[in-house]
Amino acid sequence: MKIKGIKIATCNSGIRYKNRDDLLVLTFDKPATIAGVFTKSSIKGAPVIKSIANLMASKTAMGLVVNSGNSNVFTGKKGEEIVEKTASTLAQELNCDENQIYISSTGVIGEVFDYHLITDKIPTLVAKANESEENLAKAAKAIMTTDLAPKTVSATCQIDAKNVTIEGFAKGSGMIAPNMATMLGFIFTDANIQGDVLQQILSELNEESFNSITVDSDSSTSDTALLFATGDAQNEKITDINDPRLSDFKATLFEVMLDLAKKIVRDGEGAKKLVKINVEGASSKDQAKIVGLAIANSPLVKTALAAADPNWGRIAMAVGKSCPEANINNLKITIGKFTITQNGQLHPNYVEKDVHQYLKGDEIEITIDLGIETIQEANKKTIYTCDFNEEYVTINKDYRS
Amino acid sequence: MKIKGIKIATCNSGIRYKNRDDLLVLTFDKPATIAGVFTKSSIKGAPVIKSIANLMASKTAMGLVVNSGNSNVFTGKKGEEIVEKTASTLAQELNCDENQIYISSTGVIGEVFDYHLITDKIPTLVAKANESEENLAKAAKAIMTTDLAPKTVSATCQIDAKNVTIEGFAKGSGMIAPNMATMLGFIFTDANIQGDVLQQILSELNEESFNSITVDSDSSTSDTALLFATGDAQNEKITDINDPRLSDFKATLFEVMLDLAKKIVRDGEGAKKLVKINVEGASSKDQAKIVGLAIANSPLVKTALAAADPNWGRIAMAVGKSCPEANINNLKITIGKFTITQNGQLHPNYVEKDVHQYLKGDEIEITIDLGIETIQEANKKTIYTCDFNEEYVTINKDYRS
Repeated sequence: MKIKGIKIATCNSGIRYKNRDDLLVLTFDKPATIAGVFTKSSIKGAPVIKSIANLMASKTAMGLVVNSGNSNVFTGKKGEEIVEKTASTLAQELNCDENQIYISSTGVIGEVFDYHLITDKIPTLVAKANESEENLAKAAKAIMTTDLAPKTVSATCQIDAKNVTIEGFAKGSGMIAPNMATMLGFIFTDANIQGDVLQQILSELNEESFNSITVDSDSSTSDTALLFATGDAQNEKITDINDPRLSDFKATLFEVMLDLAKKIVRDGEGAKKLVKINVEGASSKDQAKIVGLAIANSPLVKTALAAADPNWGRIAMAVGKSCPEANINNLKITIGKFTITQNGQLHPNYVEKDVHQYLKGDEIEITIDLGIETIQEANKKTIYTCDFNEEYVTINKDYRS
Repeated sequence: MKIKGIKIATCNSGIRYKNRDDLLVLTFDKPATIAGVFTKSSIKGAPVIKSIANLMASKTAMGLVVNSGNSNVFTGKKGEEIVEKTASTLAQELNCDENQIYISSTGVIGEVFDYHLITDKIPTLVAKANESEENLAKAAKAIMTTDLAPKTVSATCQIDAKNVTIEGFAKGSGMIAPNMATMLGFIFTDANIQGDVLQQILSELNEESFNSITVDSDSSTSDTALLFATGDAQNEKITDINDPRLSDFKATLFEVMLDLAKKIVRDGEGAKKLVKINVEGASSKDQAKIVGLAIANSPLVKTALAAADPNWGRIAMAVGKSCPEANINNLKITIGKFTITQNGQLHPNYVEKDVHQYLKGDEIEITIDLGIETIQEANKKTIYTCDFNEEYVTINKDYRS
């Protein structure tokens, strides 16, 4: 990584995958400030429960352990033991408190594994952990499950005329839905920002990035996004969310988070297109989100997009089922630059082959003006999703085999 | 049909399909009592709007026209004209009021067609319409879109020691979701029952039959279920919903409606299995339905079922995302006769290969005891769905071509 004071090592754990690294250990030279958002599922994995408890207790981090292939969810006492042994082993190596160790797991639900597969490897991983710039990509690869591509991002901004770096990696491809948090996302910065301010920034930006994507409407029991700040950029510490010095940092962090979120959608299981859905003119932002998600999660809309078929009636269907207030005469559907509907019927200038051509591209934008209220920031919402191909089904039939 | 006084004829209209009948005209010898339930979508087709208006105005029916291949939804003034011309043409042939003519259309949304394709054929269809017993199957075939099989049912019961017949046909395969009404379902009886009583019975039974199925979470803009009663069975007219003479009729009608509903799910696009999901021990029936639908609509649950993969973690995921009150320690998941979870972890007697073997069957039953309240009728709900295969995607990529 570019940020100094963060060491990384990965290896194969033997939990599920063969011939690839699936266990990541990341350590901080000194305690990092931390903020986190987690799945809102009522069935949370043991690592999520532990991370939430840590965040309450300590607000600083010294280490992070992530494994892929097994999510350690619905695993009872044995699952709790895996988390405890992992934390205590790494805490002993780093000579820190157990509640400064964060753990994330992703993969199959409901299968117990032997915690020694992790704990036995921790001393070696800590010994070999280093600050190489290649570590960002290596870490992103180690946490993949059905992902086809590692997801990383790196950006810089300024606070107090000091250069600040923001780097992150994420994973996620299926079981991605936005009404909870996200899949796994880990973001790092050397900015010097107080913990509660960091948390407010993360929660706010999360709503319009990770919480605005969907692949398949299914929400993971392991969703976690963590933001760590080392303070090494040496700006004067920011202690107030309204501090004007935050503006460049917040804008850059948002770009980083949105970039990772879009990378998850673009790598949606079997996906070939990134689809941006803008809903505006709703009665509220919540209503705009409900309609946006209804379109983004409709298997009929998504299969039509996969086929580059301008079957806009399916978009109208999704509006109709999700928005009781919608009036067909005020509803305006736009695909790319093409106006599709107006005054309750097809626009007179609509040319199907032009829209078909546009839909062959790999980035699609659909805009719905519900026409319930005049368009303004408070009643619009953007959702990101992907198209839906046979490969999604094939991948998820085969996932455990 | 077995019920006398109902004549049927079908033909090819030229609207979309070739080499098959796609236009149905059905007439009653004398006015039939009618009840109906319709899509709750805010974007309704012109035929749905017309049928709802008729039901308010007349409460009796003399004729029914159904076409497949084009749903006449989002078609503006031209769509209204199609409906008006169809009704007036058939009303003239039958010498009845226009509001005694019911119209349903199913197929592509947003494409206008020439109403002459229907009206020019009505006189011939009326002339050749007859009472043959084969008409039930013929009518069911004419209204199919992506359906692979026609869906019919016939049953008998008694009122006042008089034999009463109930017959029906339905269509539906994709864009099937239960929080609205259904796809197209037409049910006929010779029972003598007052209109408002018939409507109450239909609405009540609809909730546990057509409204309890889902194929793909997408709700049609054309959903319609109509129940016609000719009165020919000559039982003394029933005018009170609490009349004890209704008990056999209601039980039989429910069987008829549930049978048609299950036939729609079993013929879900690409489906190979019928899946029954019972949710019990919820805090309310509404909560049980929300959880049942979350499981039934989860693409991850449905693809696992397609692969006969006992990936019960995905069922737990769907409970977690849909039920904030769920407690992992009280949640009991049962597949067939096999108890999967207990006390927040896998049941000690769980044998994966046995459950895998069970899931290879074509009828699957899953029961979720949420353990929030003691199980009783008021907090349980059954949802019917199907598995999810590559063919669903293929069918819906190809639908308009």
